[in-house]
Amino acid sequence: MVRAKRSGRRSGKPDTRSEILTAARALFADEGFESVSMRRIAGAAGVDPSLIHHYFGSKDELFMAAVELPVDPGPEIAAVLRGGGVEDAGERIMRAFVAIWDGPHSGKLLAVVRTSLSKPGSAFILRQTFEHRIVGTIEEVLGGEVDHLRVRAGFIASQIFGLVVARYILKIEPIASLGAEDLAAAIGPTIDRYLTMPVAHLAP
Amino acid sequence: MVRAKRSGRRSGKPDTRSEILTAARALFADEGFESVSMRRIAGAAGVDPSLIHHYFGSKDELFMAAVELPVDPGPEIAAVLRGGGVEDAGERIMRAFVAIWDGPHSGKLLAVVRTSLSKPGSAFILRQTFEHRIVGTIEEVLGGEVDHLRVRAGFIASQIFGLVVARYILKIEPIASLGAEDLAAAIGPTIDRYLTMPVAHLAP
Repeated sequence: MVRAKRSGRRSGKPDTRSEILTAARALFADEGFESVSMRRIAGAAGVDPSLIHHYFGSKDELFMAAVELPVDPGPEIAAVLRGGGVEDAGERIMRAFVAIWDGPHSGKLLAVVRTSLSKPGSAFILRQTFEHRIVGTIEEVLGGEVDHLRVRAGFIASQIFGLVVARYILKIEPIASLGAEDLAAAIGPTIDRYLTMPVAHLAP
Repeated sequence: MVRAKRSGRRSGKPDTRSEILTAARALFADEGFESVSMRRIAGAAGVDPSLIHHYFGSKDELFMAAVELPVDPGPEIAAVLRGGGVEDAGERIMRAFVAIWDGPHSGKLLAVVRTSLSKPGSAFILRQTFEHRIVGTIEEVLGGEVDHLRVRAGFIASQIFGLVVARYILKIEPIASLGAEDLAAAIGPTIDRYLTMPVAHLAP
């Protein structure tokens, strides 16, 4: 049995699939992941809601396809956080980050990041990936242990976005050439501090 | 006496000025700031070298005009570093960063950053601004006190580029709304650590 797409997504009439993706992108951009229902996306695309489930499965999977992200950071982050204690999570996060970004999806990840950073109308891609896939996952896994995770996640993201810029976009040396262990030792403690510093006064 | 440009740049025949800028951008992009002489840029633009000095003054000023940066980070960073000790430089750097990025040049700075991050051929703008205006200045001011400044500057830049992305491009809350003092308290210590951690083993 041969699947039409190696990604495992169900195949379908290309027009319908791309109409759903176009409608989903527009609605996610304008109103955000949480506010938009599958039913509304179906309405905007002029298709039956069951077709979205047929083509994409869940709303999470539809989002990943709409923004063309090749890797869902949610399960990756959950696995890293569950793989040890909070006190040295920074080093584990850095190792996982390098493994993904130096891996086979590197070019596609970079293309999505470039798109999201280049036009104001595309900022929603990284903003909602952060809000929905990253903050949501961190709250799910560490919610009982660490307070004000949204604030902490913002500072951690600021360091990790900057590492993407320095290492993969601008290719500044030696950061562009360092291995995972050196990056983990240098940047891991920054993340650990953002996970432990007092932030109650910064919470909205 | 009325100047043609409020920026204080000397006015001139628009075609000549823009031909010099086009030639300068192409040569800086291909070969880097250090390798390209004013004479070669003049040759590529088909003008007499004296005209470049007439229109732009120094090579530094020509670079700033070619990449359309409204603020030269060199003197700003030098003033911050000279304004106190190395041990709390991080907080002073963060305050200066917010003052510039929240100031009147904010829109223009953002436009240059977006351009530089969006296309591989434009990465040279931020890469060379970093190499030539930022690392150069830090080495000049702190060279006697702190070792391996190029490595340290790379890590500091990774945090600051990421703050630009989180605060000004993606507008992630609460980072997008925090004041200079809160950002200085949260991120200043990260910069201080990058200025003091052992990095000899990471130097190229």
